Amino acid sequence: MKAVRLHRYAQAPIVEEIADPKIAHPFDVIVKIGGAGLCRTDIHIIEGQWKEKSNVALPYTLGHENAGWVHAVGSAVENVAVGDTVIVHPLVTCGFCRACRAGDDMHCEASAFPGISTDGGFATFLKTSARSVVKLDPSLQPKDIAALADAGLTAYHAVKKAAAILHPGTTAVVIGAGGLGHIGVQCLRAMTPASIVVVDRSEAALALAKTLGADHTVLADGTQIEKVRELTNGFGAEAVIDFVGEGSAIADGVAMLRRAGSYYVIGYGGTLNVPFIDIISTEINFVGNLVGTYTDLAELMTLTADGKVKLHTKTYPLDAFNESVDDLEHGRLQGRGILVPA
Amino acid sequence: MKAVRLHRYAQAPIVEEIADPKIAHPFDVIVKIGGAGLCRTDIHIIEGQWKEKSNVALPYTLGHENAGWVHAVGSAVENVAVGDTVIVHPLVTCGFCRACRAGDDMHCEASAFPGISTDGGFATFLKTSARSVVKLDPSLQPKDIAALADAGLTAYHAVKKAAAILHPGTTAVVIGAGGLGHIGVQCLRAMTPASIVVVDRSEAALALAKTLGADHTVLADGTQIEKVRELTNGFGAEAVIDFVGEGSAIADGVAMLRRAGSYYVIGYGGTLNVPFIDIISTEINFVGNLVGTYTDLAELMTLTADGKVKLHTKTYPLDAFNESVDDLEHGRLQGRGILVPA
Amino acid sequence: MKAVRLHRYAQAPIVEEIADPKIAHPFDVIVKIGGAGLCRTDIHIIEGQWKEKSNVALPYTLGHENAGWVHAVGSAVENVAVGDTVIVHPLVTCGFCRACRAGDDMHCEASAFPGISTDGGFATFLKTSARSVVKLDPSLQPKDIAALADAGLTAYHAVKKAAAILHPGTTAVVIGAGGLGHIGVQCLRAMTPASIVVVDRSEAALALAKTLGADHTVLADGTQIEKVRELTNGFGAEAVIDFVGEGSAIADGVAMLRRAGSYYVIGYGGTLNVPFIDIISTEINFVGNLVGTYTDLAELMTLTADGKVKLHTKTYPLDAFNESVDDLEHGRLQGRGILVPA
Amino acid sequence: MKAVRLHRYAQAPIVEEIADPKIAHPFDVIVKIGGAGLCRTDIHIIEGQWKEKSNVALPYTLGHENAGWVHAVGSAVENVAVGDTVIVHPLVTCGFCRACRAGDDMHCEASAFPGISTDGGFATFLKTSARSVVKLDPSLQPKDIAALADAGLTAYHAVKKAAAILHPGTTAVVIGAGGLGHIGVQCLRAMTPASIVVVDRSEAALALAKTLGADHTVLADGTQIEKVRELTNGFGAEAVIDFVGEGSAIADGVAMLRRAGSYYVIGYGGTLNVPFIDIISTEINFVGNLVGTYTDLAELMTLTADGKVKLHTKTYPLDAFNESVDDLEHGRLQGRGILVPA
Repeated sequence: MKAVRLHRYAQAPIVEEIADPKIAHPFDVIVKIGGAGLCRTDIHIIEGQWKEKSNVALPYTLGHENAGWVHAVGSAVENVAVGDTVIVHPLVTCGFCRACRAGDDMHCEASAFPGISTDGGFATFLKTSARSVVKLDPSLQPKDIAALADAGLTAYHAVKKAAAILHPGTTAVVIGAGGLGHIGVQCLRAMTPASIVVVDRSEAALALAKTLGADHTVLADGTQIEKVRELTNGFGAEAVIDFVGEGSAIADGVAMLRRAGSYYVIGYGGTLNVPFIDIISTEINFVGNLVGTYTDLAELMTLTADGKVKLHTKTYPLDAFNESVDDLEHGRLQGRGILVPA
Repeated sequence: MKAVRLHRYAQAPIVEEIADPKIAHPFDVIVKIGGAGLCRTDIHIIEGQWKEKSNVALPYTLGHENAGWVHAVGSAVENVAVGDTVIVHPLVTCGFCRACRAGDDMHCEASAFPGISTDGGFATFLKTSARSVVKLDPSLQPKDIAALADAGLTAYHAVKKAAAILHPGTTAVVIGAGGLGHIGVQCLRAMTPASIVVVDRSEAALALAKTLGADHTVLADGTQIEKVRELTNGFGAEAVIDFVGEGSAIADGVAMLRRAGSYYVIGYGGTLNVPFIDIISTEINFVGNLVGTYTDLAELMTLTADGKVKLHTKTYPLDAFNESVDDLEHGRLQGRGILVPA
Repeated sequence: MKAVRLHRYAQAPIVEEIADPKIAHPFDVIVKIGGAGLCRTDIHIIEGQWKEKSNVALPYTLGHENAGWVHAVGSAVENVAVGDTVIVHPLVTCGFCRACRAGDDMHCEASAFPGISTDGGFATFLKTSARSVVKLDPSLQPKDIAALADAGLTAYHAVKKAAAILHPGTTAVVIGAGGLGHIGVQCLRAMTPASIVVVDRSEAALALAKTLGADHTVLADGTQIEKVRELTNGFGAEAVIDFVGEGSAIADGVAMLRRAGSYYVIGYGGTLNVPFIDIISTEINFVGNLVGTYTDLAELMTLTADGKVKLHTKTYPLDAFNESVDDLEHGRLQGRGILVPA
Repeated sequence: MKAVRLHRYAQAPIVEEIADPKIAHPFDVIVKIGGAGLCRTDIHIIEGQWKEKSNVALPYTLGHENAGWVHAVGSAVENVAVGDTVIVHPLVTCGFCRACRAGDDMHCEASAFPGISTDGGFATFLKTSARSVVKLDPSLQPKDIAALADAGLTAYHAVKKAAAILHPGTTAVVIGAGGLGHIGVQCLRAMTPASIVVVDRSEAALALAKTLGADHTVLADGTQIEKVRELTNGFGAEAVIDFVGEGSAIADGVAMLRRAGSYYVIGYGGTLNVPFIDIISTEINFVGNLVGTYTDLAELMTLTADGKVKLHTKTYPLDAFNESVDDLEHGRLQGRGILVPA
């Protein structure tokens, strides 16, 4: 089969022929890829930033946002059958550790992460596990929803936590209305009656956010803290959901919190730096967010099937992988890039 | 009446005669002080650290951990009567703002803080509000429980939040078994089945913690992170409850967290400094803690009446205030210092 | 002033002149009524069904769904001022008992219920308490929102509980889309991503429900259980919200529950009759619902101000009270009847 | 191997030789039974009460409270190894349905129940699944803890729900301090600071409850409602945990509830019969309880290992099965009967 393989860090991956994956374990599932999302993390991997963390042996296949159709299944697989349309949870989890048994898959003590620590989905076929595939309505096109497998799942997971405190009369500030943020806005709109305020440096991103359910948009032009304070009668927001996580966004977000408010960390790159006296005197919270659970992914797919969450995508054939990376790096990619095997 | 008054920052307060407080509002309550706890914050106030925050006009009366007997009540007061034994919630709250209506008194939008922003309880009488007094069993001695009004309330409030995630098989690490910490350990023991691990630099504090319900004690001698990891099978603790909040305690506490664990901030002085990548990749949380609600105080008094929380105290007459401060500053004070008016 | 007074049970109330209420307590608030909702409970009171429960001395003034403008305030009132537009929480609560301190006003240990146990709002003026008035935007017309004070508040309170379990992919069945139910549907739509299924005997009520956000409507023609089962892939609904509470609705509702589902009881008249074996083998729950808290009412007013909850009303002058009752009893009243003093 | 087999309903089971179970599926686990608890449900099964519900083909092996050592494992099993000491969760669950993925194993859409719907553990060996075995410390003796697999798990599951509302100052009434109830009392003591009131008809059961942590015991002699009201200052209890579920216990339990209180249904046999007006006017709840989750069982085993939950048992050899039933039926069995294969 054809696959996008990383042979050396800091060099462009090569699209080449490799052997098809084979069923080896009773719960293995092989998915024929219908679409695989391109993510900024792929660029970080190529650059070598994940070298120590993933400890993966090169060459290997990239691609961690995958959807397609079941191609083959192990002897014990009963939850999907060959031909089923599926989206693939990014982690392969054990099902037996404390986290898995409680439904917190992403904290599995023995997980693998295809596309990061093992072969991923920029290929004709992906090998994953029965525990990782969510069966979809056959009418859904894998290439249209693949990017929900990781980017969307992360946004949903954070919004679901925030929704628990977002009663009528509260405010959710979304910092960053890009790839993840614009999904986050849609999830907030579907799941909460809160006033949604979106902050971004891009007028275009704010305009899109408005069409997706934002009640207010604030241009990050230096007056954003003041404007959020005004929009919240001087109190600040009960929830700040930060999809940026670096630069001035962090201090902005902290300054936008209401007393007893919660700051949801999703974007990363920067460092949290807050005196404890400020944390206790206002009783604020910082809430970490990893990718979501399998259950979260199933719920997000329901929102998608209901038309409440939509993605903007641009497709590329596998052979054009390096072109898609180039488009992403140079800001020529509107929406999410999706690689589609021939 | 006699009162301990601060006339100038950085000078010792003066014990002097002033006019008795008078009932002015229908909900005023005047409490005859039976005991008022001495707190490290009193020293910080004298030093001038709270000058800008409290913005209080000097001279004024210190003392924010108060208990006693109702001496006089305003025309509309019905929840207590003259002669009742009471402990005093540290805040005077409005009862009408969103926070008050939801039971989150400490986020009242129009509160006063006797002993910090208005006249406090190192005096014969304290003026507070009907909303701030918790009626106690007459058998309780105010001097025995006064320190629960603020120190104890803060510890209880944080432990109550942590208790929600402390199921059998989980671990709560308590950093610092001093004034607040030793109450925290007792609250944890009364309210959760978690394994309680106490970390402190003092062997004596650890020995006390053991008698109060700690399952394990760990001397903070440089090996504390490693030892907590060992006690948690390498996973770390679901909850780290930090009563120190400065120095190496912070980095220690973060390193002791299990994936998806929560760090409860109570002590202060230091700064939280954690890269966002670490917060998201392990999905950890930081939870601020202010003093507790009125309801928290009532619940803590139940634990005390049930014998589940006990305080170690040393009493001083009001005239010996500066001596008590000296004892506290020089480590000669075993347990909590309590000022008792004649 | 003019008031609708009940002089004898089972006789039509009389519209007559009585003395205006006077401020007697520091927290008293007198509201000039702008609109007072007519409720089926008013008919039950007239019939004498509440005689023992309310134990009220006749004659007295009916009317427990009130909104208007502040006319006079007691000496200690600071949260509203004369002239403010307000909606009136149906209970006058003490603010000091355990329930009040925790925000659960409706379980106040010393409450009064104007219109049921004391003089109500079918009058020029109503005397209530500072704790019972929610200040509104002056643009809101009391007659347009008065019915939210009790009917709407009850629906909101129940939906808010249910919302906690209504994640994407779940189903909420609303039984009865009348006065309370049609508000419940709007609250569900604003606050949850659940699939909303409305069951009613009236095609007109179902048609209205559809315009208010119902995803599916089911005519209660004998096939309703089967149809709800079909709409939930045979599993039943996570939440059944019963605004009828009598007749076959109860057995229907129980049969529509999914395993581990919850049945929210709002309507009343009937009796719950379920073998314990059925409760444990499917692990279902029954959740009682009284009127909501003050905080609930403030939140509902936010939904209303945001245009997410709307009421259908018909106004009557106070003098036409008995005509409005007649319209209600004979099904000639479209929407909620609102009495408006001249 | 030897097994206790039911050949005909209403006839005594026969202890006979049958073929050993064999590994057939990659996740099969065969447990050498160290102890299997005798339950009143076994008597109901023999009598034929479960004939329609279980629909099991006779003859089959009874026994649904099992513990022992792993004897053989399927090819894909990694969570336990031959020789491990294990307790067996009573359900064999699929691991793939919505309930399993969320950790709510007992609502698995495709579960089996050995000892009820398939061959159980009154035998030398039991075949179960990798998902159903909880690995224990080798120092634990299967015969000492087998009864926790079902009776204990059910009690724990209900108490864990109740613990969420049992803050200091609240009261939990336990109705019935027998097989499940005496475990429930211990779980309450370990997990909550509530006042525990135990109601039973047996003085001996009450005496035992006192030693296990009950704060108050009340003999069910006709004055129990009044006494519980007295113990709760006339308010009633926040939680009533009913292990009896039949006869007058039900009406008693409802009458013992505080406003907004919750009634946890565990015992069964009777019928809940409460007018909706009573449910809404006091806003009470009824909470169904099935057996607990796998995670619950692991947590309960932690409480047991910590010495916080203990069982009283009497052992019988497999051959004496009908004698053990006779002892149970005639009240000669102190504590829980445990069948131990030779």
